[in-house]
Amino acid sequence: MKIALKPNSAVPLYLQIKEHLQKQIKRGVLPPATRLPSTRSLAEELEVSRITVVNAYAELAVEGWVQAHVGQGTFVSDLRRGVERAGIGEPFPLTGTGTWQTTLLRPPGVSASNMLADMLHLSQQPDLISFAMGAPATDLFPVRDFRRAINVVLRRDGAEALQYDGAAGYKPLQATIAKYLQARGIKARPREVLITSGSQQGLDLAARVLTEPGECVITESPTYLGALDVFESHGVRVMGVPVDEEGMRVDILERLISRHRPRLIYTIPTFHNPTGVTMSQGRRERLLALARQHHVFILEDGVCSELRYSGTPLPALKALDRQGHVVYLNSFSKILLPGIRVGYVVASGRILERLVAAKQSADLFTSSLMQRALAEYLAAARLEHHLTHVCQVYKARRDAMLEGLARHLPADAHWSTPQGGLCLWVNLSSDVSAVQLYLTAIGYGVAFAVGSVFFPPEGDRPPDADGPDRRPSRSFRLNFAAHRPELIELGLRRVAKALREEMAKRSVCTNRAGEAAAVVTG
Amino acid sequence: MKIALKPNSAVPLYLQIKEHLQKQIKRGVLPPATRLPSTRSLAEELEVSRITVVNAYAELAVEGWVQAHVGQGTFVSDLRRGVERAGIGEPFPLTGTGTWQTTLLRPPGVSASNMLADMLHLSQQPDLISFAMGAPATDLFPVRDFRRAINVVLRRDGAEALQYDGAAGYKPLQATIAKYLQARGIKARPREVLITSGSQQGLDLAARVLTEPGECVITESPTYLGALDVFESHGVRVMGVPVDEEGMRVDILERLISRHRPRLIYTIPTFHNPTGVTMSQGRRERLLALARQHHVFILEDGVCSELRYSGTPLPALKALDRQGHVVYLNSFSKILLPGIRVGYVVASGRILERLVAAKQSADLFTSSLMQRALAEYLAAARLEHHLTHVCQVYKARRDAMLEGLARHLPADAHWSTPQGGLCLWVNLSSDVSAVQLYLTAIGYGVAFAVGSVFFPPEGDRPPDADGPDRRPSRSFRLNFAAHRPELIELGLRRVAKALREEMAKRSVCTNRAGEAAAVVTG
Repeated sequence: MKIALKPNSAVPLYLQIKEHLQKQIKRGVLPPATRLPSTRSLAEELEVSRITVVNAYAELAVEGWVQAHVGQGTFVSDLRRGVERAGIGEPFPLTGTGTWQTTLLRPPGVSASNMLADMLHLSQQPDLISFAMGAPATDLFPVRDFRRAINVVLRRDGAEALQYDGAAGYKPLQATIAKYLQARGIKARPREVLITSGSQQGLDLAARVLTEPGECVITESPTYLGALDVFESHGVRVMGVPVDEEGMRVDILERLISRHRPRLIYTIPTFHNPTGVTMSQGRRERLLALARQHHVFILEDGVCSELRYSGTPLPALKALDRQGHVVYLNSFSKILLPGIRVGYVVASGRILERLVAAKQSADLFTSSLMQRALAEYLAAARLEHHLTHVCQVYKARRDAMLEGLARHLPADAHWSTPQGGLCLWVNLSSDVSAVQLYLTAIGYGVAFAVGSVFFPPEGDRPPDADGPDRRPSRSFRLNFAAHRPELIELGLRRVAKALREEMAKRSVCTNRAGEAAAVVTG
Repeated sequence: MKIALKPNSAVPLYLQIKEHLQKQIKRGVLPPATRLPSTRSLAEELEVSRITVVNAYAELAVEGWVQAHVGQGTFVSDLRRGVERAGIGEPFPLTGTGTWQTTLLRPPGVSASNMLADMLHLSQQPDLISFAMGAPATDLFPVRDFRRAINVVLRRDGAEALQYDGAAGYKPLQATIAKYLQARGIKARPREVLITSGSQQGLDLAARVLTEPGECVITESPTYLGALDVFESHGVRVMGVPVDEEGMRVDILERLISRHRPRLIYTIPTFHNPTGVTMSQGRRERLLALARQHHVFILEDGVCSELRYSGTPLPALKALDRQGHVVYLNSFSKILLPGIRVGYVVASGRILERLVAAKQSADLFTSSLMQRALAEYLAAARLEHHLTHVCQVYKARRDAMLEGLARHLPADAHWSTPQGGLCLWVNLSSDVSAVQLYLTAIGYGVAFAVGSVFFPPEGDRPPDADGPDRRPSRSFRLNFAAHRPELIELGLRRVAKALREEMAKRSVCTNRAGEAAAVVTG
């Protein structure tokens, strides 16, 4: 297969390949059911990296021009049934969303666990553009560098890299992370860095050590689904504090502390998940003062905090903590690779001891091979370079999504403008339920995370609770980082189409036939 | 360096190399502080595999002829301070055993967590021969095959192998394990195999799902330390049932069930840890009948059950289970590689659902890269070959330890003769405390696991509880699999020396000077 690539073109190579193939398919040069060359052989022929061809094929697949069959290859689609024609027009069937739909129609807050599983399931559907997961972009994973690190470790350490190791972690990794944290203003001795299997395990261990069933924990409302899941599974009552543009409403927090005497406040101060907002310096200080005054622990979730694209960095709560009230957790899942399952918790004294004991009881230790490979990768000083690159790409994607939202969403919709992280938060002012919108949207081949699932079951509503921005049922979360700008644009057009359809239905219901036509064409 | 190796000799190559170097050191050809060639360069020069040289150096290091300095190389020791001269004679200092000694002197049962950490710590002390851990032998790890599997996966799946995955596990791995289990008489659908981070996590998840704090769980007494740790951390009361040559005393179990109404019976029926005994067919059936009759779940720990060296295989309880009373757990830690942290739980229905939800809450999912690499390794059909080899080697080591015990221990000591697994169990009839013996033994450069730590805090004593075989304080566990026969012999000589010293002290205490001399020379 000959494709005349222009290496110096502004159009990326993968798009050149994609467009060439797309034309061939349109012209019938490549008829339906034709098997495309393997990505490896085409890459060799064109003298490009394999990932370039993989990306080209992925683009074609998403738009319905080709279909991949595992173990068999990639085939030209039958365009009469293709997604591209249906495009953002006609709905196409999607299998396997039964659970998700069922779950969504339950009351909010009861099913964090199902929700996570279903978002993952959706993100793996071919042809569906999913903005639902909080996952980083696979196209940026430093696979080759990490493979090199694994091979270095296995050649150097041999069997030792695969034997049992201590629960607290591989010592050189603990030391490297302590140094990494110090550059971010967090002082920790190496032995105060407990290695966990992702930050989710950090959350689970912290819940084991810092809470008892029946006690109260305060979180932002909305908050990270996995945290709701952990607290629910430990039998802990979760009270939510609303969030505004400056992060957690500490004025409301103070009332809740006095009333409910919580053991723990769980917070994501920087690039909060799911809303994307960042807690202001003033609120950080006030939060710490409250924790000190009322003898409450703070569990600070630093996940994504390194992914900043604009604005001035603010210190972590842990960096401001003088009394040891803050237990800090983070991971390498969002900034590097989720599949290695390495995160960490920073604590000290008796809490650290209990966390290490809990870790040992939970799973003895985190994969020694993954820990050593990560230590090797970090020692080779590749992370800073990788982070710089990732932040550039994610910034462009964030901007693409913000522009797309402005272009496609109605004027009465609002959304956050995060200075970093992976996700932003949309509030629909119009009288459309996010769940209903979701069900229509997946029919058009796009998914997002329905907002209601991120809200703890209990909590104070702010004075303006009935305002459009605070209604869980009208909100949803979009991942802006996982897809390239072209796919973001395509996905948002699908969302907008679904939204118009839902608004039309509303109008039909309330106003009968009168205004419907106008909305449908709007 | 020239060494005339005899490839057809009965003496293994690594021992030929070791003996050659040892002679050179003795003769002063290689004076103290000489740096030996790197293992890689010597291996190339001698045209042997690198592991052969690594093993030769390890032998020299254990006997004190050389010392390895990480990152610098291996150097000839100063023999005036060498371990070999002190050998099994003079004690040599050992750092870092503070915690272990302190822990041992606490009442039994309170400190499972510390115990595990300390055994690991000891196993990593250079120059100390540790029989303490339940770990497999590093010299048998299929490092090269596993490295190949990782590289195959990363080349084939790229970033997908490092992205988020579902909590239940990587589907092809679930399917492969289901097939593997079927060959062992356990019928499970792929989706009934939940992938966990080692069997320890399987235990933890099962405890979360199948028990509530304050409830009662029955275990064998003694039992696996990590299980005691899990149940303790979940606030579950553990009642112990004694073990004899046929495994758990089901007659006593029946009384305990009626009295304490347990939710769960945790058992290791095959090559029980720590005693090495195997539950008879009759007792297996009786146990299942009791569980059925009293509506109690059984948590069957199948770890090590594939490592059989003699005797007839018996069916797993799970293979005999018709009513779904048995939740089965196992891992690849003992039969393959602990450092990949992959185990599994087999369950069905509502329990499976709850286990998957608990897994997701605990750490989202087990490393997708490690799961895929394991699936690739298993698909290449390397496990059966590896198991055959490992069982041959471990059988020889078990036999070496049994012969060594017969040679070196006094006539009134007893020990189990396991048909498989990694460990055996020693009872001292003489009036010597295992803790005291331990403290003396580590001074001689050998460690074992003191028996008392494996006993649950509560439980029935059998009628012959005061007999010598049942006294926790007189028993200890030896790992026979982790070391080569020469080291087993050397280690047992050190144990015997320590035992003679302890018996002498006893005699001095009780009989004054009278019989002491006879014992010391005995």
